Order: sequence, then C-alpha cells, then structure tokens
Amino acid sequence: MEDRNRQEQASPEVQARVRASFDSQGLMGHLGARITHIAPGRVHIVLPGRPEVTQQHGYFHAGATSAVADSAGGYAAFTLFPENTEVLTVEYKINLLAPAVGDHIEAVGTVLKSGRTLTVCQLEVFGVQDSGRKLVANGQQTLIRVDRTPGR
Amino acid sequence: MEDRNRQEQASPEVQARVRASFDSQGLMGHLGARITHIAPGRVHIVLPGRPEVTQQHGYFHAGATSAVADSAGGYAAFTLFPENTEVLTVEYKINLLAPAVGDHIEAVGTVLKSGRTLTVCQLEVFGVQDSGRKLVANGQQTLIRVDRTPGR
Amino acid sequence: MEDRNRQEQASPEVQARVRASFDSQGLMGHLGARITHIAPGRVHIVLPGRPEVTQQHGYFHAGATSAVADSAGGYAAFTLFPENTEVLTVEYKINLLAPAVGDHIEAVGTVLKSGRTLTVCQLEVFGVQDSGRKLVANGQQTLIRVDRTPGR
Amino acid sequence: MEDRNRQEQASPEVQARVRASFDSQGLMGHLGARITHIAPGRVHIVLPGRPEVTQQHGYFHAGATSAVADSAGGYAAFTLFPENTEVLTVEYKINLLAPAVGDHIEAVGTVLKSGRTLTVCQLEVFGVQDSGRKLVANGQQTLIRVDRTPGR
Repeated sequence: MEDRNRQEQASPEVQARVRASFDSQGLMGHLGARITHIAPGRVHIVLPGRPEVTQQHGYFHAGATSAVADSAGGYAAFTLFPENTEVLTVEYKINLLAPAVGDHIEAVGTVLKSGRTLTVCQLEVFGVQDSGRKLVANGQQTLIRVDRTPGR
Repeated sequence: MEDRNRQEQASPEVQARVRASFDSQGLMGHLGARITHIAPGRVHIVLPGRPEVTQQHGYFHAGATSAVADSAGGYAAFTLFPENTEVLTVEYKINLLAPAVGDHIEAVGTVLKSGRTLTVCQLEVFGVQDSGRKLVANGQQTLIRVDRTPGR
Repeated sequence: MEDRNRQEQASPEVQARVRASFDSQGLMGHLGARITHIAPGRVHIVLPGRPEVTQQHGYFHAGATSAVADSAGGYAAFTLFPENTEVLTVEYKINLLAPAVGDHIEAVGTVLKSGRTLTVCQLEVFGVQDSGRKLVANGQQTLIRVDRTPGR
Repeated sequence: MEDRNRQEQASPEVQARVRASFDSQGLMGHLGARITHIAPGRVHIVLPGRPEVTQQHGYFHAGATSAVADSAGGYAAFTLFPENTEVLTVEYKINLLAPAVGDHIEAVGTVLKSGRTLTVCQLEVFGVQDSGRKLVANGQQTLIRVDRTPGR
C-alpha cells in the first residue's frame, strides 16, 4: 500500500506551487530539509542527520523533528487548496515516541479531514537507517486556509 | 510580578548544568538561540529574527518557534531535577496564536507540575519589537526524567 | 486577584444566552454539572462528586473532568461572540496532573486569544475539598465561531 | 483488514481484567457505554445516542465522545500490561472532525507505542448509523503504567 501511495503524484501545477512555497521557507533550507514526495493530501520531507540538527544526546532535536513534521502537514493540506490561498498552522501536538536516530528522518504529513476552513492532518516521523525505518514521532495538526487578498 | 520573577535565579550549579546541556544542542546554536534566564522551574530562550528561521511569509517558522519553546520547557523541568538525571520530551502541543514577527522571539518554559517521573510545563512564546511584546504561541508539554546510567 | 475577577460578570443578555445553551446540553445535566460564574471571556463550571462520574479507582473520570473543562472553555469563548453565532470545539488537549479527588471539581475556561474565526482557551480544573483547592488538570482548546443560518 | 483485526481477541484473563475494571467505572455505566471488543492493544467501546449524552445542538457532546475515547485508549494500553499494574491517563488531545451524529458512536483505542513506563495510543471515534460509519473524532493519548502497591 505504501508503494501504491508513493506512486500517486499531485498535478504538476500543485507540485510547482508547493515547491515554490517550500523553497521560500528559510528554515527548511537552513536545516537542510528537502521535499521528496508530493501526493494529493500527502507530503514527505526528508532531513539528513548532522550536528546542526541535534539535541544534547546527539539525537535529532525534537524541534527539528517537529519543524519538518509541521511543514509536511502544512504542505499536505496545501495540495488540496485552490489557487490564491495560503495555509497557516493553527496548532499541533506531537509525541516523541523514541530517540530520533538515523541517517535521516522522514516526515510524512497526511490529510485526515479537509474542510472549507480547517484541515486536520496526521503527522508521522520515521528514523531511517540501513537497518530499517522506525516511527519516532507521531502527531496531529490543525491548519487554516486563508484567502490571499488580491493585490498583495 | 514579571520583575520579581526575573530576579530569581537558579543556583550556580544548576545554571552551569543547564548551560552545558544547552551548549551541546547543535540545533540551538545553528538557529542562533541563546538562554537568557534560568530560574528554578522557569527558563527563557531568545531567538533573533533572520532569514534562516522564517517560513514562506517571512514570519518565524512554527518549527523554529516550537523548537525554542520545547527547549525552554525542557530546561525549566531540568532545573528541578537532581544531578545525574536527564530530561526527555514526551510530547507537546502548541497553538500558533498570531504571526510570529519581531526583532526576536522569547520562549518561556514554566513548570506547572513537577512529579517524580513526569513534569508538565507551560510554554509561551512572545514576539518582541520596539513597539512591545505580544504572545504569539502558547503550549503545554510533558517531560520525563531519566536516571543516567552510571558509567555511561 | 481571583476575588476581583470573580466579581466581574458578563452582561445579563450574555449570561442568559450562555445559560440557555448550557441548559440544553443533555450531558451537563446528566452529569450533575452547573455553571457557577460567567464573566467576559471566563466561565466556571462545578461538578459534584458522586459514583456516577468516577473511574475505576473512585476518582473523577478523566472523561468527566474533560467534559466540564471543554464546556467551560466553549462558553468562555461564547461570551465574547456576537448574537446569532454558535461555538464548536475544534480540538483540545488536556493533562491530568493529579488524581481528581474532592467534594467537587471546578472547571475554569479562560479565553487566551479571541479571533474572528478561531478562539483559543486555557482550561483548568481544580479538585475542591475542605482542605483546599488543587489544580488536577490543565489544558488548551481551540474553538470555531459559526454564524447561525437565518431561519434555522 | 478490519475483519481480521476484529477476530483477534485478548486472552480470557486479560478480557476479564479489562471488564472488571470497566464495570467499576461509574461514569461508563452512567453514560450507557459498553465494551464491544478487546484485542491485544486494541479496545472498542460503544455509546448509544440518547438525550443524556448530547450538547446544545443534539449531537454527542465532545465530553461524551472524549470520555469513551479516553477509556478505549486506556484499556487498549491495559491489555498489554502485566498483572498487578494499573493504567492512568497522562494526557490526550482530540480533534472533533465532524458533528458526532448516529445511532451510536464507537470509540477505538489502539496502542501505537508500548514502553515500560509510558504507552501512546491512537484514538478514533466513529458515528455509526444505517447509512454508514464516519470518523467524527481523532486523537492521541499518553498513558502511564503504575505498579499496584502490594496490600493495597
């Protein structure tokens, strides 16, 4: 099922819109994160491990884990929005289930419920290394759609 | 009241313990965050604004806001722990109340309940500029105390 | 300060609107909860202890604690809404800080941020007995304002 | 997959332990909730619709929805605990995704991560009527295992 889902791709227009927004997020570039998959209602972001994203024990910092999870959920919601709209995070909650270790972490945001105003996403973060892929964080996020004021 | 609280300081030993741990968090240095106040059960962290910490509209990224909030709460809990223990974030929830703008943001973590195993903190983040100080995010966090294995 | 706040009262119109809505909540009556204070942006609800609201150890059930906390927050938001609107809970998060024991529990919902569409409330629940008043749960809630369709 | 999972059953001992605890929860009986399925790491609770569990618009009250979700998650965790232990909810977060309507609601608690001290569960609540089954709430919960003091 993962494979089937992986093959789904958002339309080229939506992908371009998501990538343009992602590229304008200073934080994502600064952390070294990149978008690896854009499906309708689902976005994957990968963050490679390096000292700049760690906490005091050398694991990925919960803040880095959450930052990519938040962005993955935000863009997952955004793939379902019409043009000339923007997405803002209202709130999220995340459980850090296990030390986030690995060559990289992969955050997956998936739309659970898409409403006219509010969207709710599931957030998952996996630690990935040669030996496998392990769920290290799991969360839930609420987002709001904002219509872009014409002329802005 | 803020002023009175500001004057409280954790003991030099606790302050040294907190600063040593903070300095070993690669992410905090990479973002440019610094600890500005360490009281018993309360820690303040400041993050100056710059392009490296923004989202697509130029505000502080929710991930950066959360990262400093999470660290402020973690160290607030840590100030009340005995020696040879460590702190791990179990989970947190944060509401982004307003666009996080300002010369810098200030995260304040405050212990609400300190138990033997679990600690619960309140997280507040303020956007600070010449014109004033505004609450931009508010959250709640659960942390666990881990005894450091001797010899590790 | 508690005393000063206690003296604030919402306008008679707002109080009537809140009480009418509360009285139409079957669950609140079934649990035995009652509203004890309605201020602008703050509502108190009391739930007396009795076997019908307990969990397996005889404490107040987390579900009962949350139910009154959710209602207190919802009505706190509602006090600031214009006429012909309704309030719906989008989500909430609650930490159960201590066993909820007492003659009764008192839930206090307080508006943290009131926006045009979304309102964020702080939720506190206290266990109250002769020996004093103790914080037993603390949470955070997001609510949405819904305009009532004319003619409904 | 649902069908396969449905067929799994916890051992008779575990089922008896869960049912004994559930039956001692005054709130569950008072609301009219009953356990309908006990699998290892997963518990289903059903709450029939009636005026006693509604909010002001006649839907299931968020407090009732959360109460059964919290119990379903708590007992899901409990199925994996050894004898002479107890389970306490540390915190949970729940999104109310849609008006909770139906002949009954069904809460499903599923263990996501089972640790020595802490367990994390996913919470789902479905509104069920002739026309089908719809996800009306989704949440995430942290629980703690407490060893029962001998002689208590």
